[in-house]
Amino acid sequence: MLINVPPDQPVRAPWEETPSMTNVLITGAGGFLGRRLARVIAAGAPLPGTDGGKGPASRLELVDLTAPEPPAGAAMPVACTAADLADPATAAALGARGADIVFHLAASLTLDAERAPDAAWAVNVEAPRRMAEAATGHPRFIFTSSIAVFGGDLPPETSDDLRPMPATGYGTHKAIAELMLADLSRRGRIDGRSLRLPIVVTRPGAPTPAVSDRIAALIREPLAGRDVVSPLPPETLVPLASAGAVVRALLRLVAVTEDDLPPGRVLNLPALTVTIGEIAAAVKARGATGGIGFAPEADLAHIVQGWPQHFVSARAEPLGIRPDASLDALIADHLRHEGAGHVGS
Amino acid sequence: MLINVPPDQPVRAPWEETPSMTNVLITGAGGFLGRRLARVIAAGAPLPGTDGGKGPASRLELVDLTAPEPPAGAAMPVACTAADLADPATAAALGARGADIVFHLAASLTLDAERAPDAAWAVNVEAPRRMAEAATGHPRFIFTSSIAVFGGDLPPETSDDLRPMPATGYGTHKAIAELMLADLSRRGRIDGRSLRLPIVVTRPGAPTPAVSDRIAALIREPLAGRDVVSPLPPETLVPLASAGAVVRALLRLVAVTEDDLPPGRVLNLPALTVTIGEIAAAVKARGATGGIGFAPEADLAHIVQGWPQHFVSARAEPLGIRPDASLDALIADHLRHEGAGHVGS
Repeated sequence: MLINVPPDQPVRAPWEETPSMTNVLITGAGGFLGRRLARVIAAGAPLPGTDGGKGPASRLELVDLTAPEPPAGAAMPVACTAADLADPATAAALGARGADIVFHLAASLTLDAERAPDAAWAVNVEAPRRMAEAATGHPRFIFTSSIAVFGGDLPPETSDDLRPMPATGYGTHKAIAELMLADLSRRGRIDGRSLRLPIVVTRPGAPTPAVSDRIAALIREPLAGRDVVSPLPPETLVPLASAGAVVRALLRLVAVTEDDLPPGRVLNLPALTVTIGEIAAAVKARGATGGIGFAPEADLAHIVQGWPQHFVSARAEPLGIRPDASLDALIADHLRHEGAGHVGS
Repeated sequence: MLINVPPDQPVRAPWEETPSMTNVLITGAGGFLGRRLARVIAAGAPLPGTDGGKGPASRLELVDLTAPEPPAGAAMPVACTAADLADPATAAALGARGADIVFHLAASLTLDAERAPDAAWAVNVEAPRRMAEAATGHPRFIFTSSIAVFGGDLPPETSDDLRPMPATGYGTHKAIAELMLADLSRRGRIDGRSLRLPIVVTRPGAPTPAVSDRIAALIREPLAGRDVVSPLPPETLVPLASAGAVVRALLRLVAVTEDDLPPGRVLNLPALTVTIGEIAAAVKARGATGGIGFAPEADLAHIVQGWPQHFVSARAEPLGIRPDASLDALIADHLRHEGAGHVGS
């Protein structure tokens, strides 16, 4: 079921099309990452055009379970659509929209996937499959995969070419979708590109039980003046990226020529590896007035310990895809975009 | 849709159940491997029982698109069922049958999967998913995966732990099903075990366009007195296993305790690597009267060159899973089981 919210500017009529027209579709556009990406594209971030040049998107469609808010002051028409990707016909209809670039960010996350494996399979695997099968014009299809594709006994550095052996249903679905999208690319349905994300911080808003948000909360809450309890001990190593670093990487990945893609069309986003204790010290140095306590939770620690600690990519550097420069830069990204007015409040 | 052919002996009544009762279900049981496996199990091959001991199956159900022939002289009741696994309800119904051991051999092979990707996905991925989700009692679920999960730039030896990067839709589906079955095992639906098969020879009967049968024909046809044309040049290396070696491996794998399973619950079946020229010489040495000509076909050569040449498994040896002893032993397996009366005819 698709519900369109009329775009805030009229959609360009077919006879107005130019060779560089670029229709962009973002799924999961109402989420933390989706909103950041939509803002940057709406502001005119250069994207590869159908004529081989680069320019802003000519049209942007934002899709989520509830219709996302259109970004203020968009430089192009923006359509906001409510759609449940778990419905096969909806996924196929979105795929058939004729987008030149699809950023597929919608997903059922770790805890939901454990609770409702069938529903998660529908969103995480079937939805991108049906979108890609229905796609026209071989769109660039950017897929956000995850650090969670890795598990088991990991070497000190988790590289692009390590065998994925996921320890969760969510990681399994992501590893499966990577393989599926590479095959759909080989068959010419799409030009698929998968980026494996580390723990992305810092989602704004109220805390959620999502594993990554339990870690994000260690940055967000103290900086907003609230105390927080870490479910992980201080010495736990976690690989992080700011939302800004992820958005930059997605925009770099979409611009890469097909010949430059890594084997399997997938790469790790290089991450900044820090301890939970270092996060606590860094937010304090930034003036946080909330405190961080520690009450380790075994199940959460188990999930996080199954993830790579040093999450690296030899493929990323030549493509200009880089981690955050420092933990302080990563926190600054949060404060600049999501945390303004919260420090000391 | 399930169509049951009544078993040739009455099914044991519930009050006759013993602790060692072992219900076995084989899908794809009408195929080359399925028939061999069914014959061996019907003849009383020892299988792990529900009481921890070993014994013959107490009941055997054989499933394929058309109901398989029951093996002659079976030591237990045998039900023969026609079922289309592409139908979700049928797959779920089979999974819910309460089998203690499932050998899932049904598949849509390479060329069919390229022609009809959606139908192949239904059989290769959705069917085992629905069977496993519907399973009761945590059955041992033995999955025949394939050498085709590997592709790209392969090292000299393809080991269990190499990253799968399939070059075909069929290989993609097998790699996906491996990941999915490991996750369904983690979640306790099944006790899944995947065995990656090399090229299995020698299917009897008329030649088919299947890639593996084009290679099998190089053994079968000359030994039956018929000329054959090889689509691959003489120097092409191919990793082979006899049907006998595969059946022995499947019966070993089903008997392994869960703790002894390799990471990801999957291992390569060690293969015998030979050249096409060596196959030609070996069948001639066995008295073949048909000749082998050469007319390389680029598309087929491309598929085969994407497969591992030396397909090895460090995990197999400790479990007692071994390749054929020699090319001559492999050909002898064919002659003993499928080729009797054909030599020199």
